[in-house]
Amino acid sequence: MIKIAVDAMGGDHAPQAIVEGALAAVQTYSDIQILLYGDQAQIQALLPKGDYPIEIIHCSEKIAGDDEPVRAIRRKKDASMVVAAKAVKKGQADALVSAGNTGALLAAGTLLVGRIKGIDRPALLGTLPNLRESGESFVLVDMGANADAKAKQLWENALMGNQYAKDVLGKSQPRVGLLNNGSEDSKGNKVTKEAFELLSQEEQIHFIGNVESRDILAGVCDVVVSDGFTGNAVLKAIEGTAKEILTLVSHSLKSGNLQTKLGALLIKNSLKETLGQFDIESVGGATLFGVKAPVIKCHGNASAKTVAATIGQARQIVKSGTYDSLAQQIANKEGQAED
Amino acid sequence: MIKIAVDAMGGDHAPQAIVEGALAAVQTYSDIQILLYGDQAQIQALLPKGDYPIEIIHCSEKIAGDDEPVRAIRRKKDASMVVAAKAVKKGQADALVSAGNTGALLAAGTLLVGRIKGIDRPALLGTLPNLRESGESFVLVDMGANADAKAKQLWENALMGNQYAKDVLGKSQPRVGLLNNGSEDSKGNKVTKEAFELLSQEEQIHFIGNVESRDILAGVCDVVVSDGFTGNAVLKAIEGTAKEILTLVSHSLKSGNLQTKLGALLIKNSLKETLGQFDIESVGGATLFGVKAPVIKCHGNASAKTVAATIGQARQIVKSGTYDSLAQQIANKEGQAED
Repeated sequence: MIKIAVDAMGGDHAPQAIVEGALAAVQTYSDIQILLYGDQAQIQALLPKGDYPIEIIHCSEKIAGDDEPVRAIRRKKDASMVVAAKAVKKGQADALVSAGNTGALLAAGTLLVGRIKGIDRPALLGTLPNLRESGESFVLVDMGANADAKAKQLWENALMGNQYAKDVLGKSQPRVGLLNNGSEDSKGNKVTKEAFELLSQEEQIHFIGNVESRDILAGVCDVVVSDGFTGNAVLKAIEGTAKEILTLVSHSLKSGNLQTKLGALLIKNSLKETLGQFDIESVGGATLFGVKAPVIKCHGNASAKTVAATIGQARQIVKSGTYDSLAQQIANKEGQAED
Repeated sequence: MIKIAVDAMGGDHAPQAIVEGALAAVQTYSDIQILLYGDQAQIQALLPKGDYPIEIIHCSEKIAGDDEPVRAIRRKKDASMVVAAKAVKKGQADALVSAGNTGALLAAGTLLVGRIKGIDRPALLGTLPNLRESGESFVLVDMGANADAKAKQLWENALMGNQYAKDVLGKSQPRVGLLNNGSEDSKGNKVTKEAFELLSQEEQIHFIGNVESRDILAGVCDVVVSDGFTGNAVLKAIEGTAKEILTLVSHSLKSGNLQTKLGALLIKNSLKETLGQFDIESVGGATLFGVKAPVIKCHGNASAKTVAATIGQARQIVKSGTYDSLAQQIANKEGQAED
């Protein structure tokens, strides 16, 4: 059984959406067990009577959305997120899922679960759909953990993204691209120019050079390497653009003349299918990579459906063994470097 | 008459698309005159016989897409872009339009046309549509001129964007937002945190705080301030996402069943209208601001339609007087600072 620790008190719709998502997840996957951390009474009230693999671990505190991350992690010792992270550290659970305060979760992952040897800065890694090939996706790393990354961190991000794309997405030789302001080799700012050199020399990855944000959804590569500031900006630009265009399309159809409305009625299902393919919410969350066990951030405004999808993602990541593979890979590299 | 210098030899479809675009522009606007810089014979062959306000200035060289920018500007003294930039500098033309090598055009603008006093780093400024309010748009600055910007440059970008939004977009009190990795005041990397302080203290702008890339197309502010690396990444992410989603929608309609196809046929015009609203190409180009006269970059793969739109944009910018207003504004500020 895969044990997943879930912070029941984090997120805009906690604990309800979290508890409902957990229930949906154990109904979908027969090989998981969920540990729900949070207020016993509140959680209990949301769980129907019955027998399912969900255990409640009562915690008297919770971390708020506006808490200062590192301070909150250190002071609120009985916060659901903190207790859950410590359980993962002790091996009582295989992964942590939370929709709470992002900064606090990153701090909990880095400080409580702990970095693996050889990675200075764990990064937030997530997948986005390749819109040219149905069912395919690619990795974007870093989605926002390190806003001031140096070239060395971009190199770490490349190794992490490469490992994840192999183990979780099943790409045998992932094409790794460096997000840059042009696709030519000479492009970039100070940091990306230096990172380009490091990645060009790295034999363990298949580096295809610089890629531009306009080409990533078309599947130009399997791993997009970025600093956390730019990666975050690109991710949110994609989300915002998708949302606004789809609104525009459906609005223009609804407000049209009779002919347009009739047409819209006829294509409704087909359009829904298209929109579904682009529903970032149902893809799940972003995982903090470079720490000892999966720590997965769910959208703050996650619905029960998104929570369930993220728990499913946690299960998949645990089963893939990619966290251990990465630690092994980095340890081998360090060993070679010492030879 | 407004005189616009056009580099006939720059861009993927030069000189044909450029010459055709120039012709379309003089047919649309009766108050402009175009100076076409480039190969006399090639341009002449593309111009039909007749009487229109287009003059050809023969140049024996052109700057290639892969030329090293600063070197090309200095060595190719008879290149169409160089001669055109010098004409603007001398006051023989009011603005320069080119679809050629972006780096070279930025260098030509900064080194040949020249910076205004008080601006260290001219920036590429462009407008994008506000998708929530038809006909409205907002400014994004910098779209890619300075990949390694410091906080001081973000402050310059804010002043420039503010002036442009007032003079060209007609916003009486533009809402200026700082592109950041969260909307809370405390968010950011080293540079944006420092810029946040500078912008908070700047009385000449209406600073509304941090904005996220996911909200900009919804019109969260009138001026989005960014460094050139992130601004470029966000711009291209928006372009790429728009393109991929619209392809996905139209593909899913075409490949659908008979009902979907009939529906698609009925909504075709309405959908086209929606797509048109999002056609970044027809919005025109990005202008290098902070130099002495408008230097406008057109997409490299611009069609004649895009070239004409960009010439129209150059005309509008010249008429607005925003380049002189900015110089005046900055001079006043420097004067005050010296008091």
